[in-house]
Amino acid sequence: MLIKVPQGQAIEYAGEGTLKAILAQENKELLKQYIAARAGDERIDFHTRLGREAEVELIPWDADEAAWIYRHSMSHVLAQAVLRLFPDAQLAIGPAIDDGFYYDFDVAEPFTPADLQKIEREMKRVVKQNHKFERIDVVRSEAEERVANAPYKQEILADLADDQTLSFYQDGEFIDLCRGPHILGTGQVKHFKLLSVAGAYWRGDESRKMLQRIYGTAFATREALDHHLAMLEEAKKRDHRTLGKQLELFTFDDEVGPGLPLWLPKGAVLIDELEDLARRTEREAGYRRVRTPHICKESMYRRSGHLPYYAESMFPPMELEGVKYYLKPMNCPHHHKIFAAAPRSYRDLPLRLAEYGTCYRYEQSGELFGLMRVRSLQMNDAHIYCTLDQFEEEFLAVCQMYLRYFELFGLENYLMRLSTHAPSGLGAKYVDAPEKWLRTEDMVRGAMARGGINYEEVPDEAAFYGPKIDVEVWSAIGRQFTIATNQVDFAVPVRFGLTYTNAAGQEETPICIHRAPLGTHERFIGFLIEHYAGAFPAWLAPVQAVVLPIAERHVEYGSQLHQQLLAAGIRAELDAASETLNKRIRQAQTQKVPYMLIAGDREIAAGEVAVRQRSGEQLAPLPLAEAVVLIGTAIRG
Amino acid sequence: MLIKVPQGQAIEYAGEGTLKAILAQENKELLKQYIAARAGDERIDFHTRLGREAEVELIPWDADEAAWIYRHSMSHVLAQAVLRLFPDAQLAIGPAIDDGFYYDFDVAEPFTPADLQKIEREMKRVVKQNHKFERIDVVRSEAEERVANAPYKQEILADLADDQTLSFYQDGEFIDLCRGPHILGTGQVKHFKLLSVAGAYWRGDESRKMLQRIYGTAFATREALDHHLAMLEEAKKRDHRTLGKQLELFTFDDEVGPGLPLWLPKGAVLIDELEDLARRTEREAGYRRVRTPHICKESMYRRSGHLPYYAESMFPPMELEGVKYYLKPMNCPHHHKIFAAAPRSYRDLPLRLAEYGTCYRYEQSGELFGLMRVRSLQMNDAHIYCTLDQFEEEFLAVCQMYLRYFELFGLENYLMRLSTHAPSGLGAKYVDAPEKWLRTEDMVRGAMARGGINYEEVPDEAAFYGPKIDVEVWSAIGRQFTIATNQVDFAVPVRFGLTYTNAAGQEETPICIHRAPLGTHERFIGFLIEHYAGAFPAWLAPVQAVVLPIAERHVEYGSQLHQQLLAAGIRAELDAASETLNKRIRQAQTQKVPYMLIAGDREIAAGEVAVRQRSGEQLAPLPLAEAVVLIGTAIRG
Repeated sequence: MLIKVPQGQAIEYAGEGTLKAILAQENKELLKQYIAARAGDERIDFHTRLGREAEVELIPWDADEAAWIYRHSMSHVLAQAVLRLFPDAQLAIGPAIDDGFYYDFDVAEPFTPADLQKIEREMKRVVKQNHKFERIDVVRSEAEERVANAPYKQEILADLADDQTLSFYQDGEFIDLCRGPHILGTGQVKHFKLLSVAGAYWRGDESRKMLQRIYGTAFATREALDHHLAMLEEAKKRDHRTLGKQLELFTFDDEVGPGLPLWLPKGAVLIDELEDLARRTEREAGYRRVRTPHICKESMYRRSGHLPYYAESMFPPMELEGVKYYLKPMNCPHHHKIFAAAPRSYRDLPLRLAEYGTCYRYEQSGELFGLMRVRSLQMNDAHIYCTLDQFEEEFLAVCQMYLRYFELFGLENYLMRLSTHAPSGLGAKYVDAPEKWLRTEDMVRGAMARGGINYEEVPDEAAFYGPKIDVEVWSAIGRQFTIATNQVDFAVPVRFGLTYTNAAGQEETPICIHRAPLGTHERFIGFLIEHYAGAFPAWLAPVQAVVLPIAERHVEYGSQLHQQLLAAGIRAELDAASETLNKRIRQAQTQKVPYMLIAGDREIAAGEVAVRQRSGEQLAPLPLAEAVVLIGTAIRG
Repeated sequence: MLIKVPQGQAIEYAGEGTLKAILAQENKELLKQYIAARAGDERIDFHTRLGREAEVELIPWDADEAAWIYRHSMSHVLAQAVLRLFPDAQLAIGPAIDDGFYYDFDVAEPFTPADLQKIEREMKRVVKQNHKFERIDVVRSEAEERVANAPYKQEILADLADDQTLSFYQDGEFIDLCRGPHILGTGQVKHFKLLSVAGAYWRGDESRKMLQRIYGTAFATREALDHHLAMLEEAKKRDHRTLGKQLELFTFDDEVGPGLPLWLPKGAVLIDELEDLARRTEREAGYRRVRTPHICKESMYRRSGHLPYYAESMFPPMELEGVKYYLKPMNCPHHHKIFAAAPRSYRDLPLRLAEYGTCYRYEQSGELFGLMRVRSLQMNDAHIYCTLDQFEEEFLAVCQMYLRYFELFGLENYLMRLSTHAPSGLGAKYVDAPEKWLRTEDMVRGAMARGGINYEEVPDEAAFYGPKIDVEVWSAIGRQFTIATNQVDFAVPVRFGLTYTNAAGQEETPICIHRAPLGTHERFIGFLIEHYAGAFPAWLAPVQAVVLPIAERHVEYGSQLHQQLLAAGIRAELDAASETLNKRIRQAQTQKVPYMLIAGDREIAAGEVAVRQRSGEQLAPLPLAEAVVLIGTAIRG
């Protein structure tokens, strides 16, 4: 047996046994420094019995994957505490998740915040008692006996394959059907916190029972926990739904319908600015804008393959004069029709068709969430039709456009996940064009490398019709968002019969790149609200400057300044002296207005204005014209 | 009896008789100079028998309303000619229309162009024969006898009220059920022409028989006829469907659906420019832009009253999770919801919400016509919420916005048709708010007068909820288009419970003005294509300049110039030397590109470029930089 020790000397052991026993014998300190081990792709815990030929590598406590292990153990501790306080609770499942863990309980009454406090105190007791985790391997009949009074566990057990190893884990009086891995004892994780409780359908199925899901989190150190809790607190303050209301950006209305945001004037400014940005950027990059309707006939979605494969995500049809019409879930088929509207020659390629098109997709009411999950999506869409020879340059240009946007929005943390094909899936999972797959994937890699773009490759996860790149970004407080997808498409141009005449006079099928760097207005603005905590950069801010005359007698002067700002193309408001200056400054601060221009007797006498920035910084008083220029310059970057 | 003679002395006649007899006796010349007479609101012909107390005014041949009389007589001449050539034809109806007349025939075979020529020749014979028109008043039984073999006439007769006077008009061998009025004889109108033939359902009902409708036109003078035919010829050349294809502005696709234009890149430029224009104009006028989804729940359209009253013009619903959703036929309900999204005070008013929203309306396939009758409508919409005191100023500002647009687009000929209420309809045809009706109508008149705006008042034609103004414009070749409607709305803000707090702290309901000066992109661009014959002013032109290097060796120089034009924000293309210069100039001319920049040896040697305008005018060669400035200045106006 070979046990690799990261940053230490490997252990060779001639025999069998549990890792726990072997490490205890070799060096007890290892049981503290390491949490578990990796055998191939699998994580195993120290309770696992290894054979002579085994080869494993220890996982240190501070490794990313360590958290998945101790957080899962904490979900056992949670269930243990709940059973002590609520002996009638039935247990469902309790996995580790990104940044934490949860457990689902079937209880007569929903848990209250006070319950959560009691449960957390009880968990601390379990930790203090430092119960050892023990693994119990069983045969199916014994497993069935052990879960005889636990209906959810019975259902889980029934779904496990006959040849699967069955095990329970026990710590103190608590025992749970579980395949592990786990830590050694409940005393090993002291830094945890319960966060919230929410209803959750058993197995996510609305027709099954609503259970009570308790969320918690745990970290290896106090600092890491505190940092995470502070981030959560900050995320709550930056919640796009709260800020969207406070900043008057958007609203939802029951009579309009769920998942259909109404963009208020200040939110519409964000949309207009983002669209202007996209227009300028795409114009410079040689895109041509088009406009297409929001509906089309069923027959087109049969041709495109959206029907029947994508029907569940589409709105139901409207039937008119015997023909079914659908709201468009994507813009591509309409753009393909524009490509097909004229004969195309190789001289016309690449043809880049762009449209900020609004699409409609069906999401269940229960899955809708603020701007992040909606039914109407305004998409920064474009389709690039090009030859195979042009592909790499086009793809690189798309990637560079992403980078420009990332820089503009101060996104330092991003990741592109490239999903490629597997040769074994050709003709089944993937369109059968091996040469195109290899060549375009290579070109995508080449483009990413040339652009110096951080990416990760995921084999065998491509779309049917070509490789794709999912783009993930992290907000200023470190939360991750999937913003957009770039897709290469060999197949659909064929279905639509799209061709161009090549230099030799023959008809060829172009490749199509689907791209949407700014994603949808809904998701992207939702992300930006959190990223900037609502304090949008001056060029994007719905209100860029507010004029605050100190008293009634200063209003006329303020009003002149206001007019000068408007004439300079600055989105300015005048907040006349109906409240105290301090109160109006606070309001402007709450509205996150970048510049507050304050004028009183002294400023008027000097023909100046005092400029206060959103940051609280106060500039030296400036002559009016200079203040207008200063702000205008800041806005235009 | 009193017979007024415009520009002549009135005739007093003590007795009864037909006008024809009396005028023949008084002064035979009057029978030539005048065509008919007006008695109150009614037009009567010279065959009409007048009593002692009658008071009429003669209508001269050159009056606008004269044309309605002689054109209707020409439709009789048309039917007479058809029956001579096609004795089995059954006659349906034959009215005068704007600019002409038609007659519908039930014939075994559709008429061919050759048939039309034959019919026109036969009409000339009828005119030459100068048959006198005679009126024959009959009782119903006699009328029924006379139409015994004419099924369409039977149907018309059956629909006439019992107490209605029944009459036939005869000229030569031809006799037709008709209430007149008519000219004296078929020889009076020599200037006519048959224009076209088209299928038309009997009574416009798709379930009835398709008849053959022959269109013709007639004028009092040869000059007027020639002018009209030249205008029709010009309108054909300017047909927006033909030019839309030639200039690559838009297309329709069977698989997308009828009435749903796909806007090609060059058409999308027109849309973007018009939207930018509206954005600037509305921003300066204090509007605030919003964005709303294209669908909403049935319940909102019940509240708004669109359901059931407007249901026939709406797309059918989509049913989702048991709720019906409709495509929006108008933007107003969504905007009302935005008004309602926050408490409003008198300080927030006027609140002007603008959106270039796309609406969907159902038009029967058979009624769709190019961009003029479509199913998707991108509307230059806005709703102004104001107090009664603010109304006049707001309405005037809207009218002035129209005038600015008219001036920009060189529309010298326009008419606003103000539809007002009738007090007798209050509470039934009109919302029962007499004070608001009188006051807003007065304010509308005041606003129109102050703005110096040409308008016509039509009593008793207002909408249910307030007075309205329909805006009509005439294109450069004198064709009339209805572009937009301004509507005052007292009623719907109440249905939506919209209120604001007035200065005294009480809740009041605002008035709403619906306005859309640029109408819909579809209709307005359709109109502009005809108005400009596709030669859009430089600021609007999809391609503003094309660079034409004379030979291959001049392409590099041309390419530099092209880049300079693009960098200056000019929509420029480079047409490299693949064809002869003359051919490329012709192409640019066909594409109506405002500026052609030509460069050959001489220009390159001098660092200049030759500028040719779309008009054919050739400017003296200019240094490159000057050419760029010249065009940039022309574009930015």
